Amino acid sequence: MSKARLEAFSDGVIAVAITLLALDLTIPEPGHGELFTQLGNHWPQFAAYAVSFFSIGIIWVNHHARVSLIVVVDRTLLFLNLVLLLFVVLIPFATATMATYLTSGSEDSHLSMAVYAVVLEGMALSFTAMFEWSLGEGRTRVTVPLNQRGRARLRASLGTVVYAAVFAIAFISAPVALALAGITALYYVFAPLPHNEVEELTAGP
Amino acid sequence: MSKARLEAFSDGVIAVAITLLALDLTIPEPGHGELFTQLGNHWPQFAAYAVSFFSIGIIWVNHHARVSLIVVVDRTLLFLNLVLLLFVVLIPFATATMATYLTSGSEDSHLSMAVYAVVLEGMALSFTAMFEWSLGEGRTRVTVPLNQRGRARLRASLGTVVYAAVFAIAFISAPVALALAGITALYYVFAPLPHNEVEELTAGP
Amino acid sequence: MSKARLEAFSDGVIAVAITLLALDLTIPEPGHGELFTQLGNHWPQFAAYAVSFFSIGIIWVNHHARVSLIVVVDRTLLFLNLVLLLFVVLIPFATATMATYLTSGSEDSHLSMAVYAVVLEGMALSFTAMFEWSLGEGRTRVTVPLNQRGRARLRASLGTVVYAAVFAIAFISAPVALALAGITALYYVFAPLPHNEVEELTAGP
Amino acid sequence: MSKARLEAFSDGVIAVAITLLALDLTIPEPGHGELFTQLGNHWPQFAAYAVSFFSIGIIWVNHHARVSLIVVVDRTLLFLNLVLLLFVVLIPFATATMATYLTSGSEDSHLSMAVYAVVLEGMALSFTAMFEWSLGEGRTRVTVPLNQRGRARLRASLGTVVYAAVFAIAFISAPVALALAGITALYYVFAPLPHNEVEELTAGP
Repeated sequence: MSKARLEAFSDGVIAVAITLLALDLTIPEPGHGELFTQLGNHWPQFAAYAVSFFSIGIIWVNHHARVSLIVVVDRTLLFLNLVLLLFVVLIPFATATMATYLTSGSEDSHLSMAVYAVVLEGMALSFTAMFEWSLGEGRTRVTVPLNQRGRARLRASLGTVVYAAVFAIAFISAPVALALAGITALYYVFAPLPHNEVEELTAGP
Repeated sequence: MSKARLEAFSDGVIAVAITLLALDLTIPEPGHGELFTQLGNHWPQFAAYAVSFFSIGIIWVNHHARVSLIVVVDRTLLFLNLVLLLFVVLIPFATATMATYLTSGSEDSHLSMAVYAVVLEGMALSFTAMFEWSLGEGRTRVTVPLNQRGRARLRASLGTVVYAAVFAIAFISAPVALALAGITALYYVFAPLPHNEVEELTAGP
Repeated sequence: MSKARLEAFSDGVIAVAITLLALDLTIPEPGHGELFTQLGNHWPQFAAYAVSFFSIGIIWVNHHARVSLIVVVDRTLLFLNLVLLLFVVLIPFATATMATYLTSGSEDSHLSMAVYAVVLEGMALSFTAMFEWSLGEGRTRVTVPLNQRGRARLRASLGTVVYAAVFAIAFISAPVALALAGITALYYVFAPLPHNEVEELTAGP
Repeated sequence: MSKARLEAFSDGVIAVAITLLALDLTIPEPGHGELFTQLGNHWPQFAAYAVSFFSIGIIWVNHHARVSLIVVVDRTLLFLNLVLLLFVVLIPFATATMATYLTSGSEDSHLSMAVYAVVLEGMALSFTAMFEWSLGEGRTRVTVPLNQRGRARLRASLGTVVYAAVFAIAFISAPVALALAGITALYYVFAPLPHNEVEELTAGP
């Protein structure tokens, strides 16, 4: 019951945030040159949209897989979940800022990409904290065996490492950093879940 | 359980996207001529709103009907669903761009309608992919008999054919292409579902 | 099952539409006069916000009460529901236009209020159509006795009469028309539901 | 059943409102100075975002905890819930206005913070009214013992006292008032719930 509303609220926030990403796509007004040229000039917006869409989508999938195993909901979990959502909600802003400056060819392209990486890092750290909380005694239906915890932890916290790298690379080349963030999202799409979570996912209604 | 959140998240994203369509309706400020004339000049916005609203509404109905039959949820389905939502979320942007250029009388009216058709085509192709996935052994509660698969496939993938036609017609006449997209939405509203899906829909809670 | 998603999708669309109302509240930038004066000058926006918020809120309550009784979901109901949502989604646009022109002192104040009335009338007519559909044999858990149908119908379709009056009065005085729409929302808040719907509402989970 | 939709609709509205907060974060366009300086100048927006995010988040947690105990849903509750949501939906507007004027160094910084406090006060009063309603005979699964009602009431209505203080302090120093609102949100995050609500929260699905 309690968990159902945690899921419903998180689903709602994540669904709105992922949809607001598209608000930042520019609609060129007539009279500012050919539409074809303008759409082409706006490629950073479309690339940034795709990367952020899958980054949010994957955090939803992972949130979904982990929370489905949880059997108790306490204040700590609610708070960690709120912090996770705080960063998710910042993604459309960080995406739009980054896309605007991506090809500006100035120092600002590095800074805006670094801000984007910080927001994604905040999201990854919050998720890792939720994952660690869930490892506590009796908090999930299926316990991760001790000898598999290292691997499960690595997978859950991979984002924190990758987004730190995205942050560092942002100061060298913003487009390369964006590509790395995109590759990370794709990795999570295709990477198999630990065995017990897969079972959960395929259990059906 | 797992499926419930897939449905809830999809419902959320589709609900936000369908509502954001109305954000693109222009509110003429006082002092730019009579309101009546201005509302009249903005007919492409209202026509585009109606067509996109029902196009998204119908994809929701079809998504709903198909997912209600599904009994397993795997990573592939989650990924296909994310791609479907990626295109749904692009519809408000594509609608606004198309409506802005629809009566511009230039080459841009053709291009903006073609972009709109591409987004709808992406949505239709993703849905077709989800439908094909669902035909796999043991993935749905009710299996489509082999001798009815052709017809079921045709219906599920009709959009992919129609939106290709919308794309082609866009380069001849953007308003005619818009009308075709509108007729397609109306067709799906009234077209009967395959027998087993109707049963499902009327089964009640 | 099917009905659960109809409710979830409708809840989502109505929730987004009611929240988008606040996007139309103007934030005066510094340097355009005192904030106090500006907030005062924007009273039509706040009045329009309150009236539209409760108008949407009430349609949600009524939708909720009626759909909770429904036991079959067919294509006709899905279509009627989509049309209802189409008008609900237009309310933020109609509200913003009406609020912008309400005190313009020109012919446009009448027209913009009339447009607002048309959107509310569309919403009321769609709801009445859904109500009529639900009276069909075997479509609801509790049947309205024949001798109470007149009263139930009157209540469900009262909005259609009132919003027609709002439309007419719009051409005499837009603020009076807005007040009538507000009073109607308050009436629905406090008016008792027909007996069987009240039972339903208090049945609890 | 009825309660499920009350929760779903409230979750939807609160989720959209909390996400719209980020729409007010400014994206500086290239050519208006260095991005780093601009982001620094916009610190009131980020501080206001964080305070409002947790204020809404906490009202969601408290709403969640209280409604989970409720066993009857009547018109009064629906109305009180709508009023609560009306104030929640105003928060993004009040936040943006307050952030815009926070460092304006004029009388307007006081007024805009006072408006923000009024909106939060409206939210707190509505929640207190819902709480009082829920104390009525037979309305909740677990009754608060008479000798604990004082404490439970105090906790539920603490916000009404604090936001009155925020209102008063707004006329002395807007940033101090904002800090107090932020501390209040943090208090609710960590303050333990009355015993029976904690049990409820940890009951699991």
